Formats: sequence, structure tokens, C-alpha cells
Amino acid sequence: MTAKTNRAYTELEARARRISALGDGLGILAWDQEVMMPDGASPGRAMQMATMAKVIHEFETDPEWRALLDAAEGESLDEWQAANVREMRHDYAHATALPPELVEPMQHARSECARTWRKARPANDWKAVVPALSKLVDFAREAAKAKADGLGLPLYDALVDQYDPGRKSAQIDALFDELARELPALLKEVLEVQSKGPAPLALTGEFSVERQRRLGEEIMRILLFDFHQGRFDVSAHPFSGGATGDRRITTRYDETDFTKALMGTIHETGHSQYESGLPEAWAYQPVGRSRGMTLHESQSLLFEMQAARSREFISFLAPIARAELAGEGDGWDTENLTRLYQRVEPSLIRVDADEVTYPLHVMLRYRLEKALIEGEIEVGDLPAAWNEAMEDLLGIRPPSDADGVMQDVHWYEGIFGYFPTYTLGAMTAAQIFTALRRDVPDVLAKIEHGDWAPLLGWLRENVHGLGCRFTPDGLIEHATGAPLTAAPFLAHLRRRYLSDAA
Amino acid sequence: MTAKTNRAYTELEARARRISALGDGLGILAWDQEVMMPDGASPGRAMQMATMAKVIHEFETDPEWRALLDAAEGESLDEWQAANVREMRHDYAHATALPPELVEPMQHARSECARTWRKARPANDWKAVVPALSKLVDFAREAAKAKADGLGLPLYDALVDQYDPGRKSAQIDALFDELARELPALLKEVLEVQSKGPAPLALTGEFSVERQRRLGEEIMRILLFDFHQGRFDVSAHPFSGGATGDRRITTRYDETDFTKALMGTIHETGHSQYESGLPEAWAYQPVGRSRGMTLHESQSLLFEMQAARSREFISFLAPIARAELAGEGDGWDTENLTRLYQRVEPSLIRVDADEVTYPLHVMLRYRLEKALIEGEIEVGDLPAAWNEAMEDLLGIRPPSDADGVMQDVHWYEGIFGYFPTYTLGAMTAAQIFTALRRDVPDVLAKIEHGDWAPLLGWLRENVHGLGCRFTPDGLIEHATGAPLTAAPFLAHLRRRYLSDAA
Repeated sequence: MTAKTNRAYTELEARARRISALGDGLGILAWDQEVMMPDGASPGRAMQMATMAKVIHEFETDPEWRALLDAAEGESLDEWQAANVREMRHDYAHATALPPELVEPMQHARSECARTWRKARPANDWKAVVPALSKLVDFAREAAKAKADGLGLPLYDALVDQYDPGRKSAQIDALFDELARELPALLKEVLEVQSKGPAPLALTGEFSVERQRRLGEEIMRILLFDFHQGRFDVSAHPFSGGATGDRRITTRYDETDFTKALMGTIHETGHSQYESGLPEAWAYQPVGRSRGMTLHESQSLLFEMQAARSREFISFLAPIARAELAGEGDGWDTENLTRLYQRVEPSLIRVDADEVTYPLHVMLRYRLEKALIEGEIEVGDLPAAWNEAMEDLLGIRPPSDADGVMQDVHWYEGIFGYFPTYTLGAMTAAQIFTALRRDVPDVLAKIEHGDWAPLLGWLRENVHGLGCRFTPDGLIEHATGAPLTAAPFLAHLRRRYLSDAA
Repeated sequence: MTAKTNRAYTELEARARRISALGDGLGILAWDQEVMMPDGASPGRAMQMATMAKVIHEFETDPEWRALLDAAEGESLDEWQAANVREMRHDYAHATALPPELVEPMQHARSECARTWRKARPANDWKAVVPALSKLVDFAREAAKAKADGLGLPLYDALVDQYDPGRKSAQIDALFDELARELPALLKEVLEVQSKGPAPLALTGEFSVERQRRLGEEIMRILLFDFHQGRFDVSAHPFSGGATGDRRITTRYDETDFTKALMGTIHETGHSQYESGLPEAWAYQPVGRSRGMTLHESQSLLFEMQAARSREFISFLAPIARAELAGEGDGWDTENLTRLYQRVEPSLIRVDADEVTYPLHVMLRYRLEKALIEGEIEVGDLPAAWNEAMEDLLGIRPPSDADGVMQDVHWYEGIFGYFPTYTLGAMTAAQIFTALRRDVPDVLAKIEHGDWAPLLGWLRENVHGLGCRFTPDGLIEHATGAPLTAAPFLAHLRRRYLSDAA
């Protein structure tokens, strides 16, 4: 039917399907690279992936898109089809915004800088990365300029738009400013409350990889992960990846501490469940994709922070963890495990931070990278600016650049505009979970008994199954009844770390 | 330099590199499908692989190839470059020979027939596959006709040419006729000799997967497999695959019998070492590829049949296998293990056959599929023709079609013209190993002490490292000093199973 009446639209779908299927192939190659590939195969894999990326880019930038998009908008489309065309237009605008002659040198500068950083960070050698990073920042500014011109956006917003379409820095500023006003005082209060209670008892033992893997798998099954269409493996850096109908998450194990791998597994399961719940009817189409990185992070953080670090889930988890890990001695009770999983402590490293201090790490990066892209500061200014901001926001000063400005790979891979999505995701998670609890009041009681079906069912209906039917903000409003604000997140922190903990 | 003077050739290399890198990506996806992919991900994987195959096919059939190939032949090329262009022309001729409108329906008929066969074989239901196989044979005849016209070859030869370029059925007939004259009498003699000696003692025990895997890996290291650029895993059907600089072989384990997995691993290592030894300077170019399926099979069979089933290697292997598998009781000595690995016995199933009877299985298939493609017989004639030929060649009659005409997947996947390469490979292996022993007289003495370097070094220099510099027959002649004949293979069988065994 569509084929007869909507010729341009039908052709667009065929083109999108091809690009998406190639992207899925690339997803499996990327997974294999991190999980299975022998070390010596890196050059070949780089060749395969660069070639596929180039072919995809050629398909994405085919000049015929423009006329087809215009023609399709004159055809009779339903709401999903119209949203699909909107997403295609957005993809096309991003794919064609960069001058072709910029693509390869920029990719080269990225590889170069990341390689330099991998050696320089362990050596705490900031000077070593300055030339490569400066070059990369120049490219990033040039790319931001080109994208800003092409998309009609402010410089930095044009970069954010790649990860979180439609997100504006004016909105981020307002949200982050509110956090900046509230969080430092809140943190102080939390630390006071905690100092009055008992300190958490570390759970020590020899937690073999095999036991931890079994525990992780058991919990993934509780979280309704579908192993018929998924895998669970090990990689140096945990991630959620794979392809349509083939969800693969990874973790890494520390045989002296099981808590990180376990919570990391829950986090990645949240990402993975989002992908699994995308609308099947729109698979391989832009409108069938996940709704950007803020929404993606909201789903992993809803699983991890809102649901799994709740006292309710921990009371379900504690006896299972003890049994699977043959835990002996004190501290395997709900009270202590909750204290372990809800501990707040200002620290140097973002990826190890708790949910109260994490936004401060992100704000710091957001402000610096925005100033960097807008030319207000230069690469040489970063270490001092970083250390001052750390002192200012968290009250600690990094003893080294390795644990300061050099700790994250993002900038050294040329990724600017991504950091805010972590904290926007945390706020979104709180707002969505608040709406979920309003609609399903016993959701935490169910989770306390290992029943995640009500939680997942609500997310499938109100978030996952909607793909890119709405914009990110539109989806949040559709799911929660209100635009994104910081209030639910701050309320969540106050409840968990002040009222409930007091 | 080349870039300035050989513009057309340089452009050809760039195009070939792109196709080859995409093919490598496809190789990793194919490996993942057999080894790692969760069951439920099949539809998505089929979509990814079909899309990539289609993109590759489009690149391969781009009409610009023709003018570029013509232009490049007028440029100043060295011998390798000229051979590269020859291979490109051959690829282009095959890629464009099929009418585009045949490609998709034929692919569909293949999937359909293979799916039908997978259910019908366990049910021994020949009638169930007849319609799908008839349809597929019609397609194969049409494809043979198109390729024969395009390549100027006889019908069946045009199909063989896809797997073993330049191989003619007239030559196969001559070689196989000689085997047909010699083998039945030789087989009878061998069975007589064996009946006079002690029967091999089966090695029973509980051979855990983990122990067998360790043994396999140890032997692969002896065979100089490079784990820095390779992997060793499990799959339902053992194979050698992967990509450039990323060699991956698989096996499957039977915990009551280690002998098959171990020898299968050696066989696949032979395939893999061929790929590893291809000329690095010509990676991602047609001239840098392996020299077709006869040569490929010759390398796996040289490792397995010529080298590893020799008494010399088995005397090295026996104590290691006993130690790794904690073998107890009698039969772990060289004499018995040699008897096990050199046992000859007419049997129903090709893949289980020994090297004396194997060619008879192949001849049967060769004659039938050639007659089928040439329209001399029809699908309905196959079971009777199969059973008669089995009786004739091997003196046994299949009790069922499941263990007769339905035993191999090849025809049911539309693969015609492939079977002869198994036995041509066995003959080539014998001829190459004869030349190798002439040049390196102590090669078996070295192998007896676990030193495979002389063997591998000779193959690297005389076979692997030459890629597609020559035609298949040209390579055999270059490596052995003579065109392919059956004599070295027959001499090998007589020596191993009559003189040495007597």
C-alpha cells in the first residue's frame, strides 16, 4: 500500500534499512573487538571498521536524500512515518554538515590523540598530550562551527545535538545552575548524617570470577534480560552493545570486591533493556532507535540508581549474593549492604563517584568543554581550571593530572558535548521513576520480591516502545507529564540520603 | 610512484581493498554467528550479512571495472600487479555473469531448500526435499549456463571455476578415472593387510572438554599457530575462518572420544596456517588471497593426512595426549594410536571416511552432480543412482537416504562444483609433501621431535607466500616441479597402508 502511494517515503525506508543493517554489523565488530578479538588483529579490525564507517557515511550523505526527503514530506504519512522522516532529516543534516575534507584528518587526529593519552595518563605526563589535544580541539571547534552553521545552532549546542537531539545549552545551564545551588549544601548535610551512623563494613573474601558471573547472570534474569537474544561477557571497559535483537553487555571482575561488577551489570542491563524494548515494527528505521544519550543514561540509571540501590532491592539481593558468593562473617545483611551501596564520599574520579557527587564532576567538565569550544579558554588552561573547580565544587584538589584533567578518555577522543548527558540522564531517571511510582505505586514492593515485570512493563509502554516518535524532551514530557526539571532528582537525593537515612 | 604513473591500476587497488575489507568484516560476522551469537539473533544476523553481501556485490559489479581493467592492462605493471589485474578480471567476470534478476530468487531458493533439508534429513524424508531441491537445481543449471556463456567454459566447469579457478572437468575426469582404476583393488589389499594385524584398541575414558581444549591448544602451538593473531573455539561444525591477521578455528568435543576433535583441530590449523602465510604486502588484494579450494584443502590435508597421521608425529603425540588426558590402561602407545589414526574401513558417511575410501565418496558425488547440471539425470533419479554407486565403489548400500543422498548439506545449499576439490586437494597434498620431503629430507624426523618449523617454512616459501601469483595449476607446478597427477597420492597410500603397514 505504502509502496504504491508513498514512493519517496518507501525509497527512504529502504535506504535507512540498509544503513541501519550495516550499522548493526559494525556494532557486532565493535563488540568483538572489545570482547573476543586477539590483540594482534587490531590493524585489520581498524581497516574493516573504517571501511564500513566510510561506506555508511557515503550512503548517509548521498545527495539524493534531499529531494527524497522533500518529496516524502508531501506524501500522506502517519505520525510514525512523519517522525521517521524528521529523524532522517536530522541524520542527513549531521552527516552532511562536516566538510568532507575534514572527516579523515579529524579521524586521524582522534586516533593520534587517544593513542598519546593512553601512554601519557599512566605517566602523569600532561605536557605530552598538549600538542595532540590542541590539534584535536582545533578540529572540534571547526566541526562545531560547520555543524552550527548547518543546523542553525550555537557552537556548543551543535555538538550536544549529536548525542541528545534538540538539547540546548541554555536549558542545561538552567538545570545545572540549580544543582550547583543545591548540591554543595546537600552534600554537606548528607556527609553529616552519614558520619553519625555506623560506617559500612567492607565485604571481604575471595569472590571467584565464576561465582560472580553466576550471580550477575541470576540478577540479569531477575531484571528480565533475555538470554535468547543476548550475551553477558567480560571486557576491560564494561558496555552495552550488539545489534538489533542481539543485546550484549559486559562487565569486569575484581576478585576481592564483587560490588562494582554487580552494580555495573545492573547498569548495563538497564541500557540493554532500553534497546530490547524499542518498537519492533520500526526496527532498522531512525524512528525505531533509542532517543539519544540522555534518555539512554536515564534507563541505565533508573535500573541502577532508582531501583537497584533502593533498600527494597538490596533486601532482595543480600541473601542471594551471600549464597552465591558463599559470604561469611558480618555485613551480608540488608542494612550493611545498603550502607555500602548508598555511601556518599567526595572523590577524585568521576566513574567511581556516588550519585550525590557525580553531577559536580559533570558540571565541571561541562563548563570547561563549553568554554573550550567557544574559545574562552585554551588547552593550556585546563589543568589549573580543573583543579580549581574540583576544590570549589567538591573540596578536594587532585594530586596529579592523571587523576585530574587526564582521567576521562572523552576529550582525547574528540568527544565534546557528551558529558552533560550523564547528569541530564540522572535527572531524567528520577523524573521518570517518580512518574512510574505514581502510576505503579507498589513497584518497589514488587522489586523487593524480585518481580521487575511491573517496572519493565511501564517502561516498555511509556519510554522504550516509543523509539524516536517524540523528541527527547517530548518523550520525557509524554512519559512524566512535565518538562524535565531538577526537582525530582533533588527530591530523590533528599529522600534517600537525608530523610530515609536519618 | 605507482600513483602517478598507473592511475587506473591504483584506482583498481583502492576498489579491491574496500571490497576485501568488507569481506573481512563479513568473515567476522560469519564466525560470530557460528560461535558466539545467541540463537534468537538469527533474523538480525541474516539481515546484516545479506545487506553486506549486497553492498559488496554492487561494488564488485560496478560497470566502471571494465574500463579500469582495460586501462590498467596498458599500464606498466610488475608481475604481481599483472597477476592482481588477472584475478580482478576473473572476479569481475564471475560477479557479472549472473543476471541480476537471478541473484535474489536463487538466494531465496537456497535458504528455503537448506531449511527443508535440515528437517527432512533427521526424518529420512527424501520426498520432502524433492520440490525445493528440484527448484534449486533449475537455478543452478541456469546459473551454470550464464556463467558458462560469460566465461566461455563448459557448463559444469563454469561452476567448478568459482571454487578452483581454471580447473577443467576433462582434467578431473582423467585424474578421477585413474583413482577409480586403482583404488578399489588397493582398498581390498589394505583391508587384507589390516585384517592380519591387531585391531586397534579404542581409547576410552572421560575426556573433559577442558582437558581436550588444552591438548588441542598445545598441539596448535606445536603447529606454530599464532594465538596473538588467532583464536580457538567451539562450534557445531568445525571450520577455519576470521579475517586478515585474525585467524580463528573451531572444533567440537566428544567427551568419550578425543581422537576426532584432535585431528580436526590439526586439519583446521592447516587451513589457518595457509591464510596466515599469505603475502602480507598483498593483503586486501585479490592476488594476496589463497589460491582456491583445491589448494586450501591441500594445506589442511598436508597437515592432517601427510604430516599428523604419520607414525613420526603420532610417536610425538602419544605421550602428550596420554599426559594431558590422564589416559589410563592400554593403547596409549604409538603403535595403537597409529593403528587408530590409520584405520581404513568402508563406511557410509563421507566426513567420517579414511583417506583411502574418501576419494570414492567424492567421485560418486562428482559424477552425479555433473550429470545433474548437464541435464543427464534429474533430482528424482538421485537416491537410486547414489545407492548403486555406493555399492559399486565401496561395496555397501545405504540403509536410508538420511545416510545416503541426504548426508551432505552442499547440494541443498545450491553448492555444485565444490566436491571434487576435496580429492583434488588430497592429491595436491601428497604431491606437495613429496616435493617438500625431497627438499627437506628430515622433515618427518623434525616433526617426530615436535619441530614443525622446517615444514611450515617450506610451505610459506613455496605455497602460502605466493598467494594468487600463479593459477592453481601453475602454483602446484611451481611448488612441485610437475603438473598435478594422481601418482604421488597413490604412492603415499601404498606406502602408508601396504609397505609400512605390512
